[in-house]
Amino acid sequence: MRAGPSQEDIRRHNLGALLRHVHLGGPISRAELTSKMGLNRSTIMALTSDLTAAGLVREELPRETGRAGRPSLVVRPESARVYVFAFDVGPDRLVAARVGLGGVILDRRETTRERGKFALDELAGVLSGFARQMRRKTRDDTVCVGAAAAVSGGVRKGDGVVTFGPNLMAHDVPFGEELGRRLGLGLPVSVGNDANLAALAEHSRGVGVAVRDLICLHGDVGIGGGIITGGHLLGGFDGYGGEVGHMVVNPGGRECSCGSHGCLEAEVGERALLELAGRYGPGQHGRDAVRAVVDAADRGDIVAQEALSRVGDWLGLGVANLVNIFNPEMVIFGGMLREVYLGSAAQVRSRLALHAMAPQREHVRLRTSALGDHATLVGAAELAFAHVLADPLEVLARVSI
Amino acid sequence: MRAGPSQEDIRRHNLGALLRHVHLGGPISRAELTSKMGLNRSTIMALTSDLTAAGLVREELPRETGRAGRPSLVVRPESARVYVFAFDVGPDRLVAARVGLGGVILDRRETTRERGKFALDELAGVLSGFARQMRRKTRDDTVCVGAAAAVSGGVRKGDGVVTFGPNLMAHDVPFGEELGRRLGLGLPVSVGNDANLAALAEHSRGVGVAVRDLICLHGDVGIGGGIITGGHLLGGFDGYGGEVGHMVVNPGGRECSCGSHGCLEAEVGERALLELAGRYGPGQHGRDAVRAVVDAADRGDIVAQEALSRVGDWLGLGVANLVNIFNPEMVIFGGMLREVYLGSAAQVRSRLALHAMAPQREHVRLRTSALGDHATLVGAAELAFAHVLADPLEVLARVSI
Repeated sequence: MRAGPSQEDIRRHNLGALLRHVHLGGPISRAELTSKMGLNRSTIMALTSDLTAAGLVREELPRETGRAGRPSLVVRPESARVYVFAFDVGPDRLVAARVGLGGVILDRRETTRERGKFALDELAGVLSGFARQMRRKTRDDTVCVGAAAAVSGGVRKGDGVVTFGPNLMAHDVPFGEELGRRLGLGLPVSVGNDANLAALAEHSRGVGVAVRDLICLHGDVGIGGGIITGGHLLGGFDGYGGEVGHMVVNPGGRECSCGSHGCLEAEVGERALLELAGRYGPGQHGRDAVRAVVDAADRGDIVAQEALSRVGDWLGLGVANLVNIFNPEMVIFGGMLREVYLGSAAQVRSRLALHAMAPQREHVRLRTSALGDHATLVGAAELAFAHVLADPLEVLARVSI
Repeated sequence: MRAGPSQEDIRRHNLGALLRHVHLGGPISRAELTSKMGLNRSTIMALTSDLTAAGLVREELPRETGRAGRPSLVVRPESARVYVFAFDVGPDRLVAARVGLGGVILDRRETTRERGKFALDELAGVLSGFARQMRRKTRDDTVCVGAAAAVSGGVRKGDGVVTFGPNLMAHDVPFGEELGRRLGLGLPVSVGNDANLAALAEHSRGVGVAVRDLICLHGDVGIGGGIITGGHLLGGFDGYGGEVGHMVVNPGGRECSCGSHGCLEAEVGERALLELAGRYGPGQHGRDAVRAVVDAADRGDIVAQEALSRVGDWLGLGVANLVNIFNPEMVIFGGMLREVYLGSAAQVRSRLALHAMAPQREHVRLRTSALGDHATLVGAAELAFAHVLADPLEVLARVSI
């Protein structure tokens, strides 16, 4: 119930909205911007001049259009000049990337890691080292405008502390603060839950573009969820919204790492699938092990087929519950759940038909992630760019080139 | 990614925001409005003049303040003059009320009904008859600015058709359209799901004021849910968001009216409780029957105690799932679930501790509805006022006094 925005707020909003068009949609003519944004030509011209002066976009003549008349200038993101650092801390790997405005991955470093304790020093050391390597290779006129990390765990709203992460053994880790200190760029590092960021990525650049109500189920060791309702990410009071992996689907079922039994994660996570397929043991984990079960089932391995069928039943029940609760337009299966869904789609659909009410499921589309294993990193980059898109000029004024 | 608002949009927003303060908070001084809305005194004066001229508010000298200096004028809603019709179609009763701006119930009619078919003609006939009776008693200078109904069923976004309502035997009923036609006020009748409207009511005027993330569980025959995330009602793609009653909590459990088994509604709804307590039979239903079980348990009736304990376990599991998924600040128990929760709070809390993750449940408060059996009607009134609050002057210009 606050008052409406001031003129300055509106200018900021419009600059951000224009930059967002260019960032997410790529090069676009002034004429198209006029029509998409519902503003007149002179306002669009003023906004693009401001963004050009700030070095965020540049304007160019389009390639030959074949049409008569003066062509409308095309506005392009300054992808090579304006960039963010995006980090992905998964259970099995660490990734760092330099991502240009417009979402272009300019440079990238990756290393595998052993599952186990969240050694803050070590992780922050490896990632900041990657960032320094990549930074040394940049031209002098480039500018880093943000940094963010995706983490497989619960991230507290406000301070970005990783409160829990059973699969990373994390507990109250000030990860963003530590990584920011080591990067030494004078920039805060935003931290987000990996499934939330995967949802954001699919919504911005993946299979869920323009879908205002979607659920992204992201599996690695556990099962995370990122939920977008009415176009907004479900955050919850403390920032832990979307933890669908601990919805109980099978009371009295398999023991879960959280201490409860029969959680979605316990019934359809990596360990459940591998155990049911008789393939759980030292060294047998990760995406390759999951793919091997699906491949074996494809080749007619009965044990693998039954494991997938059982896991698919629980996954379908979980999806049906979420469809009843959220009435989404789309459910996206990402991470290891992409493979699991592809191997058990019949079970999932059959459970959905059985347990979800007809009106709720009538328009729902089940899809696999379009961004695959890049989803969490892409989401981290979008989180890092969020400040720039909210207030383009303020950010440019703040960072030193 | 549209452009920011125009000056006219901002004026409309500010008029609506000011009126909302007066509508929800009651009489308020210009000085307080200045501080709460972050606008200067002359803007507040201009806005209140517009609303006064439109007959929506009036300005008065406050009662003796005991302080020196010129007192700030107090802005009051024109509750006796500007009103809406609010309707509540429950499984056991029909209610119609004339509700003044500011939420004052000016007049009210109620009748019981037999459970059974959703006889559109009959229901719309009774409710519009009530409205006519109440309207005949109003002064000439009163003006009806909206109408809305709460319905125990699924309401499609856009056209307000009641798509389903197992407990009302409804199926694709154009209820709002028919009621609007019979009212003959030239006003559309908005229709909302009862649990969604109960959530809206608790959020506006009940136990959940200023709570941005809440879940309202509303029980009558079935179990409905209204969910507010980040201050917004969860609608879903087709408007069916929040149907938590059909979340499966006990696979293979009790048969549900939806065709599935072990839904929250099947395990904790009215029928489950009465059957488990050995009190299910012809004529034994409704709030009184539920209360009788809770009273019997209080008096030491073992069967009633065991029934409540069992139902409380499933209710607690359902709440734990929702807390994991939404990380809400508050869960509200309304309708017959108010009684059930009061009779089984220990079970609910114990299940919550067992199945919800610690960070998600750390700040959640479990509360009973503050509005009780009025919640759905109050929610309908808020829905009816929504148009006026979105654009106060447009609505006044449209309706004839």
